[in-house]
Amino acid sequence: MFSIAPSARLRPSPFYEATVKAGVTSFTVYNRTMLPTGFGDPEAEYWRLINGVSMWDVAAERQIELKGPDAARLAQILAPRNLTKQVEGQGKYAALCDHTGTLINDPIVLKIDDDCYWFSIADSNMLFWARAIASERGLDVSVEEADVSPLAVQGPKGEDVVASIFGDWVRELKYFWFKPSKIGDIPVMVARSGWSKQGGFEIYLMDKSRGSELWDIVAEAGKPWEIGPGNPNQCERIESGLLSYGGDTDDTTNPFELGLGKYVDVDVPDDVVGIEALRRIKAEGPKRQLLGVIMDTDEKLEFPNIWFDIQKDGIRIGDMVNCVFSRRLEKNIGYALVDMDSKPEDAVNVRKNGKDIPGALTALPFI
Amino acid sequence: MFSIAPSARLRPSPFYEATVKAGVTSFTVYNRTMLPTGFGDPEAEYWRLINGVSMWDVAAERQIELKGPDAARLAQILAPRNLTKQVEGQGKYAALCDHTGTLINDPIVLKIDDDCYWFSIADSNMLFWARAIASERGLDVSVEEADVSPLAVQGPKGEDVVASIFGDWVRELKYFWFKPSKIGDIPVMVARSGWSKQGGFEIYLMDKSRGSELWDIVAEAGKPWEIGPGNPNQCERIESGLLSYGGDTDDTTNPFELGLGKYVDVDVPDDVVGIEALRRIKAEGPKRQLLGVIMDTDEKLEFPNIWFDIQKDGIRIGDMVNCVFSRRLEKNIGYALVDMDSKPEDAVNVRKNGKDIPGALTALPFI
Repeated sequence: MFSIAPSARLRPSPFYEATVKAGVTSFTVYNRTMLPTGFGDPEAEYWRLINGVSMWDVAAERQIELKGPDAARLAQILAPRNLTKQVEGQGKYAALCDHTGTLINDPIVLKIDDDCYWFSIADSNMLFWARAIASERGLDVSVEEADVSPLAVQGPKGEDVVASIFGDWVRELKYFWFKPSKIGDIPVMVARSGWSKQGGFEIYLMDKSRGSELWDIVAEAGKPWEIGPGNPNQCERIESGLLSYGGDTDDTTNPFELGLGKYVDVDVPDDVVGIEALRRIKAEGPKRQLLGVIMDTDEKLEFPNIWFDIQKDGIRIGDMVNCVFSRRLEKNIGYALVDMDSKPEDAVNVRKNGKDIPGALTALPFI
Repeated sequence: MFSIAPSARLRPSPFYEATVKAGVTSFTVYNRTMLPTGFGDPEAEYWRLINGVSMWDVAAERQIELKGPDAARLAQILAPRNLTKQVEGQGKYAALCDHTGTLINDPIVLKIDDDCYWFSIADSNMLFWARAIASERGLDVSVEEADVSPLAVQGPKGEDVVASIFGDWVRELKYFWFKPSKIGDIPVMVARSGWSKQGGFEIYLMDKSRGSELWDIVAEAGKPWEIGPGNPNQCERIESGLLSYGGDTDDTTNPFELGLGKYVDVDVPDDVVGIEALRRIKAEGPKRQLLGVIMDTDEKLEFPNIWFDIQKDGIRIGDMVNCVFSRRLEKNIGYALVDMDSKPEDAVNVRKNGKDIPGALTALPFI
């Protein structure tokens, strides 16, 4: 392990001081922002998410705000998904693509009102991207990174914690829907969302000076449910089949390869970025597919998280794009971005430094 | 200090294994790539750069390659600097701006040939930016991140080391000029360049599978000059007045505020991105300027590297945007992004957590 320190270039999150007090031990960098990756007890952090409730500083999930008369138009131009029926308070997952149909981010698009949208982004610069498209097309819209920082409350007991703060109305929120609220005078949005399959909410802090206060309020409210700190969990998210843009994708990956075809509406207008390419890819069919691979070894594999070749009958069929030891399956599992001939249960080998590890493909999610 | 580990999302550099062998202890993340920030002895690493020769893994300085019939046209559209006289083998520093004239990156633009340019970029996503502009304008050019990874050799003895590898012709290279070459069969470009004012070269590795080999060759060649590992040095670069895009800039900083006006040619064609805004800013004059600030305290200040208010006569005049204890001046120094009324030698206060640290403005560079 190596050390990292915040710097002027790597932005601290509004919850940074609070996570330091909570004992954060490691970080990654996401959208040029420090994102906690551990609090010293990976075992407890995992099971807290699976069985209890965990709170996460995910301020690195930045919000790109489109505001002005052409906000709705720009949102639609950027997202190859039909947004015409989206209503205020509703979020929609979208697979943003470039002009060649390659995935460049997979945000939740939140409709704040008719003239304001937030793109709650994965790890790539959608601020510059959206500004480029808006300016080149002469749209009447401002594009800014908003002062909005999500704090996630994840796990099966998350709803009880969030309801204890905001009231029982949060129990009625549908997935990806959100509602403005306040905690005292701290302005927030409350969304049913989060990068796990264990259920939960994201509280979008709308005043970066109030990060420690919000953290402490949630930590205090969660005590009856033994809330504790955590972070987006690599093991749980792979078990659950969730995508990490930039981790599971390369410079040519399109949404159809990733099983995201259901989020691509090819009947959106012709001015949507990449739609022509996406129609063609859909018509021709993708060249690769995302499956799982379960490795047949008792050893807990210590993979550096880079891509490895997957072979079937001695022939390369694709890449293992991420790998983790599953705490629930007690097996080494990974994602397999492989050719279209491959099928679940196919016997394969993962080649690591010239050695073969036997395994089998499987459908996603693992659990 | 906190720990960080490579992941599939944070790309290792081709020199990663070599830097681990060389004892790297800390990293930052730059262009989604792991960038070494220390090898355990900051004092020695600093003086090696000032008095000797240091080798740096700066693969995180990615190369965005524009290739095709419209490559030159796209390079000019992206860069508000006259590139018409740029010749093959010449690099030019350019202040890339968005449509509002805000700085979004400050690469070296390398002209490889008439149909191929590399943008050797700072820490922001110019791949997506260049693709957006190229596609929206219907240009006939491919935009890719090339398989090119710089290894810097910096310090007054750097030229001797690089000449011992490639021959004395490197001594004739002008600043930012470069030439293709080979070490054995490893393809490289050799450029007189680097993010320090101590002189030196960047060897652009053009085959990512050869990183450890190249590192070892340079380390071996440098032995007579006692070469050792290092990295872009925050202390030296601030003493020398070098800019860190994203560290010293915010979301509204324009080149004129940073003293980069001499790199902006307002007579470039009207289709250059941001040129209309830059002409207006130049005509009106910038609202801020970048100066230095020297703090008057014997204590070595331990600043977290975030921005702090600078006040003059109790009134806020701008921000200290970075701060370091200068090993040569033996003083705490920082950059001051302040209003246009401010002058070198003005007495100011830097406000840190409600306390004032007295100091004075100064012209850049410090040394």
